Amino acid sequence: MTIKLIGYSRSPYTLRVIECLHELGLPYQLDSPANFQDLKSEDFLATKHPFGRIPVLIDDDFTIAESRPICRYLATKYQGKHSDTILIPNDIYQASLVDQYISYDISYYDPPITKIIYQEIRAKRNNETPDSAVVKQASEDLAKVLDVYEKLLKGKDYLNGEFSLADLFHCPTTYYVYSEVFPDLWNDRPNVKKWWDRLNNRPAWKKTLEDRDKN
Amino acid sequence: MTIKLIGYSRSPYTLRVIECLHELGLPYQLDSPANFQDLKSEDFLATKHPFGRIPVLIDDDFTIAESRPICRYLATKYQGKHSDTILIPNDIYQASLVDQYISYDISYYDPPITKIIYQEIRAKRNNETPDSAVVKQASEDLAKVLDVYEKLLKGKDYLNGEFSLADLFHCPTTYYVYSEVFPDLWNDRPNVKKWWDRLNNRPAWKKTLEDRDKN
Repeated sequence: MTIKLIGYSRSPYTLRVIECLHELGLPYQLDSPANFQDLKSEDFLATKHPFGRIPVLIDDDFTIAESRPICRYLATKYQGKHSDTILIPNDIYQASLVDQYISYDISYYDPPITKIIYQEIRAKRNNETPDSAVVKQASEDLAKVLDVYEKLLKGKDYLNGEFSLADLFHCPTTYYVYSEVFPDLWNDRPNVKKWWDRLNNRPAWKKTLEDRDKN
Repeated sequence: MTIKLIGYSRSPYTLRVIECLHELGLPYQLDSPANFQDLKSEDFLATKHPFGRIPVLIDDDFTIAESRPICRYLATKYQGKHSDTILIPNDIYQASLVDQYISYDISYYDPPITKIIYQEIRAKRNNETPDSAVVKQASEDLAKVLDVYEKLLKGKDYLNGEFSLADLFHCPTTYYVYSEVFPDLWNDRPNVKKWWDRLNNRPAWKKTLEDRDKN
């Protein structure tokens, strides 16, 4: 059975899963609820996501929520079967370092970048005024994080050397802020810029953006 | 060689790793840097944690940072060898659901509870005044999250049925806010209260608190 993904093709969290599906060579069917209220229905909360969020993935009779666990599930079950991409290394030490870089995203990179997306992209699309003080603080915080990434990426193509789930998790959020708000945060740092160019040019990511523009 | 843990015995993130070590039956040696400035030294940033944080774990010649990746590493490498506790199920679907509950902690439970710890516990210990508006909002957010947990825990001893890494990750943060700030958030919800009592009574967690009080 085709994998079913419940989400919105412009959500960075849904795009994260779509990118993962393309990296692993897996076809999928996107099911976008007609409106946000559907996510708060009794049925959706009881059977899909108890907090009423997307994405949710249904693979045969298995349902799983939240973008990062979904991607880890897909990589664990399918990597190496339909494409050559290895997202989680087999070696326990390398896999643990990938986890560590995922945690750097969750703890340091994601909080400021999510604030910028929320203020600058989501608010503008909803005709709301961004809170400029929040954006200023978040961009300063993100600049400091990228200073650290500039050192981490020295002499490496990707965070853990080889491409992994850690890089993939950074991709959709970076895409939005890079392309619509603050490109210089990446452009001003040579290692970070080369890393972003590599991520942005991966065929699976290009397919992901094509899917987004078709929906 | 004994596992070396760099951290502070009163930090909930360090306690998370110590609890994991006890659940797995692993001895460890705690190394607490003399002051916070040591975490920002060139050597610490280059070889331990690029953002200058704790905990960091050193197992023989392998170094890994951030509490959740450290615990996942320990479970993957050692579970079943020195104790009977299984923190990550062998079955891929069950392991993926544990990941999902870990993500509920990261996305929904941890943000408000961390704000309360920062304002009410950290600020008071440093003789600073907590921001009461932040605490009020965070406690309201946490109450809504616990309403969802009350449903999730219906008829279950732990989040995924059996005890797992997901429950363990909630333990130290819950302990601080339950015992020092807002016990009624848990006491008022029967399933949540029973879950917390089970976590708080686990022998590995009791040993963790004994270690804390010795340091």
